[in-house]
Amino acid sequence: MAEASNGNEIENLIKLLAKLPGLGPRSARRAVLQLLKRRESLMLPLAAALTQTAERVHPCSRCGNLDTQDPCKLCTDPRRDAGLICVVEDVSDLWALERAGVFRGLYHVLGGTLSALDGVGPEDLNIQSLVDRLSAGGVREVILATSATVDGQTTAHYLMDKLGAFEVTVSQLAHGVPVGGELDYLDDGTLAAALKSRQPF
Amino acid sequence: MAEASNGNEIENLIKLLAKLPGLGPRSARRAVLQLLKRRESLMLPLAAALTQTAERVHPCSRCGNLDTQDPCKLCTDPRRDAGLICVVEDVSDLWALERAGVFRGLYHVLGGTLSALDGVGPEDLNIQSLVDRLSAGGVREVILATSATVDGQTTAHYLMDKLGAFEVTVSQLAHGVPVGGELDYLDDGTLAAALKSRQPF
Repeated sequence: MAEASNGNEIENLIKLLAKLPGLGPRSARRAVLQLLKRRESLMLPLAAALTQTAERVHPCSRCGNLDTQDPCKLCTDPRRDAGLICVVEDVSDLWALERAGVFRGLYHVLGGTLSALDGVGPEDLNIQSLVDRLSAGGVREVILATSATVDGQTTAHYLMDKLGAFEVTVSQLAHGVPVGGELDYLDDGTLAAALKSRQPF
Repeated sequence: MAEASNGNEIENLIKLLAKLPGLGPRSARRAVLQLLKRRESLMLPLAAALTQTAERVHPCSRCGNLDTQDPCKLCTDPRRDAGLICVVEDVSDLWALERAGVFRGLYHVLGGTLSALDGVGPEDLNIQSLVDRLSAGGVREVILATSATVDGQTTAHYLMDKLGAFEVTVSQLAHGVPVGGELDYLDDGTLAAALKSRQPF
């Protein structure tokens, strides 16, 4: 932090804030002014929260979720169904499913998707730890909830092969019309999938 | 920070980040995940920069600029023309003028504009300190660089009255066609002002 001691505290703070997703240099400048106006109520609490979170929150060694305890609160919750594992790409996907409150099993966070373009291979993802969890037994179903993108589906196919050795059901999220969605605005791929997987009324 | 000790560090951090202008709850969540992935290179330096800036940066008692020293670097710069004061609404306006690098006098930051709707009166702005600076003498021109909005212009008119008692020239920024601007896209007010203040070619 040599440059900050030169009196460039503000410039340094703007540069760091501008690295956050969603903030560019211009909005980072506005944010700094806002912070300096709310020194006690926002700026110092934010600094404390950042330090505290950085020190206390770590990935769960079992599922990859972020938490202050290891194994995390989800992995250790006795009310959750330990026979059901939902495989997601990132912690943000886990959060989305938890916000929806519709899944009561456990998770496994891959930490990304396979990607030939970006040079991400199986050894870069938390795949071995998933295999280890299945080897330990007690799991009856694995739900592959990777994104419906090319990379996401490639990863799902890879996992499908990898998990074939185990006595588990492997399923994936249904494709179809989003609830509240209008047919007119949907792409052909989604429409085709929705029609193919149609359900009795 | 009672709630943070419950293990809600992440929720607490998201709530604080979402208070920054330009970040909502969704982008704050993305920012937290990004921060936790870049703990050493971004999260801890950001916490340190926030604390440091909060402790060291304060408004200049003379002009209202934000700086680590008081009076600020601009007020104490001997190369700047102390006979010329540019009055701006906020520190962000001062930064904009400094980025343009076209003004070599001193500044005076009002801290906002007069606003009957928001209940902002003259005593809420740094107006008395401007009067004091003029009373001290040595100033030959005051440039009113408040915004070309209703509140900005109301404030400029109020200041014009207030400064009438002093032997100083009071000027304001020119209205006209922005450099690079197309006539087709300009509002009538700007076109009228640009025509009225036309200059010999």
